[in-house]
Amino acid sequence: MIYPVLTAEEAAQFVKNGMNVGVSGFTAPGCPKKVPAAIAAKARREHEEGREFKVNIFSGASTNDPTDGELSRAQALNYRTPYQSLGELRNHINAGEVHYNDRHLSELAQEFRYGYYGKMDVAIVEVQSITDDGELLLGTAVGNTPTWLQVAEKVIIEINDQLPDTIRGLHDIYVPLDPPARREIPIYRASDRAGKPTAHVDPKKVLGVVRTSEPLGLVSKFTPVDDVTRKIGENVCDFLVNEMRQGRMPKSFLPIQSGVGNIANAVLDALEHSDEIPPFEMYTEVVQDSVLKLLESGHCKFASTCSMTFSREAMMEFFSKPELHDKLLMRPSEISNNPEVIRRIGVVSMNTAIEADLFGNINSSHVSGTRLMNGIGGSGDFTRNAYTSIFLCPSIKKDDCISTIVPMVSHVDHTGHSVDIIVTDQGVADLRFKDPIQGAEEIIEHAAHPVYRPLLREYLKLCKKNGHILMNHDIALAFHSTLGKTGDMRKTDFAQILEKLA
Amino acid sequence: MIYPVLTAEEAAQFVKNGMNVGVSGFTAPGCPKKVPAAIAAKARREHEEGREFKVNIFSGASTNDPTDGELSRAQALNYRTPYQSLGELRNHINAGEVHYNDRHLSELAQEFRYGYYGKMDVAIVEVQSITDDGELLLGTAVGNTPTWLQVAEKVIIEINDQLPDTIRGLHDIYVPLDPPARREIPIYRASDRAGKPTAHVDPKKVLGVVRTSEPLGLVSKFTPVDDVTRKIGENVCDFLVNEMRQGRMPKSFLPIQSGVGNIANAVLDALEHSDEIPPFEMYTEVVQDSVLKLLESGHCKFASTCSMTFSREAMMEFFSKPELHDKLLMRPSEISNNPEVIRRIGVVSMNTAIEADLFGNINSSHVSGTRLMNGIGGSGDFTRNAYTSIFLCPSIKKDDCISTIVPMVSHVDHTGHSVDIIVTDQGVADLRFKDPIQGAEEIIEHAAHPVYRPLLREYLKLCKKNGHILMNHDIALAFHSTLGKTGDMRKTDFAQILEKLA
Repeated sequence: MIYPVLTAEEAAQFVKNGMNVGVSGFTAPGCPKKVPAAIAAKARREHEEGREFKVNIFSGASTNDPTDGELSRAQALNYRTPYQSLGELRNHINAGEVHYNDRHLSELAQEFRYGYYGKMDVAIVEVQSITDDGELLLGTAVGNTPTWLQVAEKVIIEINDQLPDTIRGLHDIYVPLDPPARREIPIYRASDRAGKPTAHVDPKKVLGVVRTSEPLGLVSKFTPVDDVTRKIGENVCDFLVNEMRQGRMPKSFLPIQSGVGNIANAVLDALEHSDEIPPFEMYTEVVQDSVLKLLESGHCKFASTCSMTFSREAMMEFFSKPELHDKLLMRPSEISNNPEVIRRIGVVSMNTAIEADLFGNINSSHVSGTRLMNGIGGSGDFTRNAYTSIFLCPSIKKDDCISTIVPMVSHVDHTGHSVDIIVTDQGVADLRFKDPIQGAEEIIEHAAHPVYRPLLREYLKLCKKNGHILMNHDIALAFHSTLGKTGDMRKTDFAQILEKLA
Repeated sequence: MIYPVLTAEEAAQFVKNGMNVGVSGFTAPGCPKKVPAAIAAKARREHEEGREFKVNIFSGASTNDPTDGELSRAQALNYRTPYQSLGELRNHINAGEVHYNDRHLSELAQEFRYGYYGKMDVAIVEVQSITDDGELLLGTAVGNTPTWLQVAEKVIIEINDQLPDTIRGLHDIYVPLDPPARREIPIYRASDRAGKPTAHVDPKKVLGVVRTSEPLGLVSKFTPVDDVTRKIGENVCDFLVNEMRQGRMPKSFLPIQSGVGNIANAVLDALEHSDEIPPFEMYTEVVQDSVLKLLESGHCKFASTCSMTFSREAMMEFFSKPELHDKLLMRPSEISNNPEVIRRIGVVSMNTAIEADLFGNINSSHVSGTRLMNGIGGSGDFTRNAYTSIFLCPSIKKDDCISTIVPMVSHVDHTGHSVDIIVTDQGVADLRFKDPIQGAEEIIEHAAHPVYRPLLREYLKLCKKNGHILMNHDIALAFHSTLGKTGDMRKTDFAQILEKLA
């Protein structure tokens, strides 16, 4: 091997205060595991000696504890994009200590190439192996790595010996040219290959190689399906079966995008147990343990993803079954989430909402409009281009204190123009064809919890009637305001607020 | 000709109460001019005789007075989608008398083919000519006509003898297949042809032909550039020139999308008079008179559009200059506004906002969040997929009574995730790279009017500080509430509202 072998500490010395640093991976899988923590340790030493030391981290999506955790604990993060999901970083962001820019995941790579973020000083990339001519066999996610390898001035490689040889062939690395030279992305089915099994880096840019031996698949397992999530899953399944019966969905079905978490899990579970849903493909950004089950049972014929977000157990199982390896491909997030492909192949998108409003607007990211939960992630990429866009949430949270259906969302990630269907444990609100007021009635009757229906109806009655959309500026956010003051949205008293403001 | 020749009244007899009716055209150009008015007359007669008569109208975008005007005056519209811009229809919609569904213009055709709207009973299509085997030479816009011809059970043709023979070759008719059979749209430059110069209809579906002789180009001319719009145009131009200098925009420039109206006019005017902007292409949905000037001067090398939204004068001029005819193509709105093509060729989008908020969210459609102005139109198609997405608005309206920059928009059409740049007469707010709070400061300092800056700064100070986004639910909509009560946003008294609600 022509590359110098470095310790993580030696590699971290190349990273200076204020640098733009790209990291491999997408969600925890595929992220570097040693060098970011060494950068955090360096930051602590610099801070102790009274020097400034912070970096800007550009990732595929969320990362792992050695990256977002260690760096935020060390106060070493200045800027962070495009997504995160780690409690500790979240707290730093909400405290205003880290500049976080919440971006559509399909767009960061091209925006970096366009020059919107300046230069990338260094990229840190986990791989299974690297050849002397710069061919990289990546790990358990792709993310923005292929673009970081192009744009970064220098590259640090982590070779993780826990990554098996048999990962070869699971990646499809394709980076589009930029306008005006861009061509079509040659993907017409979830299983199509557009690129190469390896990524490439100019060997001259490689500062060195850090050897690691870090376990894979440290994604936590989700809690089992419960009554509420089971009901949501069944409602989605019933809806899709009816779409097929009505001829609005091809009998061969269409590729599914499904997010992470308990609700996505319950939906996949319901699809698996349906007699009427045929075996289907997935075109998605993450595959969790439930997808492994679907691949094994044959209910999922093929999964195109950006990341293998399996638990350790599922990861070991996948790698022990080579017969599954031609049923899965990992792509760069620019491709897994690409509007061109999503619209062309007709992806059915399913994402979780924090809250939805009467006019179909969705908040995916900010609790009460202020506190970042995770971020918009890929939900905008998929929703905006889906064949049918579906949002999922329980109708109530924290016992009955929070209604996920509100008069007006406190933050908009997806506008009603792009949202077809809202599913809760209460039922399915179908917003297609309807005007905003018809949509509001549909949402109250089919998605809202019965406890909140009278309040939601009262809100509509208190709106001025001279508009295409109903709204009363004085009480549009009263659910949130009341929750903030009393901890219970049920205590919302519209009449009292209007009286006070009269 | 094998088709029966009908009067408009005879043709209107085929249209029954409750039918789904598709019309040709995109904005006023290309719409049918006689049959819709005859349907309105039929509706009046039916109503006089005590019978219900309303239809659902599916168009490309807005239509003309004989369609949206006559039908709404006759109380003959039940449902209307995807866009409108006629004052009279707007009033009926805002009064709740017409069910209006505001849709992304690129999506309606495919959603109709997917079956989301049921069957289309009849389509009414203006053409220059029709052959016995069903080849149609369309008029001065394409809109959703090619799909309506596919899905409609019956078709009524209007042949307008004012459409010149020389319109042949100006159309590029391409309708994608639907998932899972869809392929790439083979357009790599604004000038690429993907389809055929004519549309096709099964001759057996044609009920008959109505002959008309209706003037073209009845789009009103825009008022001249004034001080405010000139400043906005100059600011856009300065921004784009700087992007080129900084290497963020290729030296060859990129295709431009520009909306309609005085601001778009002023921007095109500024681009024309810049020494540094090279000749460029347009990939847009409408071309107004100023684009004709740019085509004549060579500043615009090619315009891909959905509709020739020229004044009568400009229309006559265009058709008198055959040398311009290889510089313009009209496409279906599904293609002119297609995310695949917009993202691939790197369109720079420029659309007008009604209002923008401190966090980059844009309201394009609903005044004070309730009263529909026109609709989202193509702005979502372009913004979400643009190389750089730019929104334009004057910083104040109605003397100083309205600030277009508000703490929170009253309706969201485009989220901050998809908005790069906001330009007003005050300057350019560049939201790229920034977190929400940095973005808010940028917007206050560079886009808001100085009269409103203190109020906007005060709002941020009154927000709870424990969040990634700053918000105070009690006063987030206070600008709108105060405008509603006093007619003047300057009278907003945050402290008083908070005191009342305490």
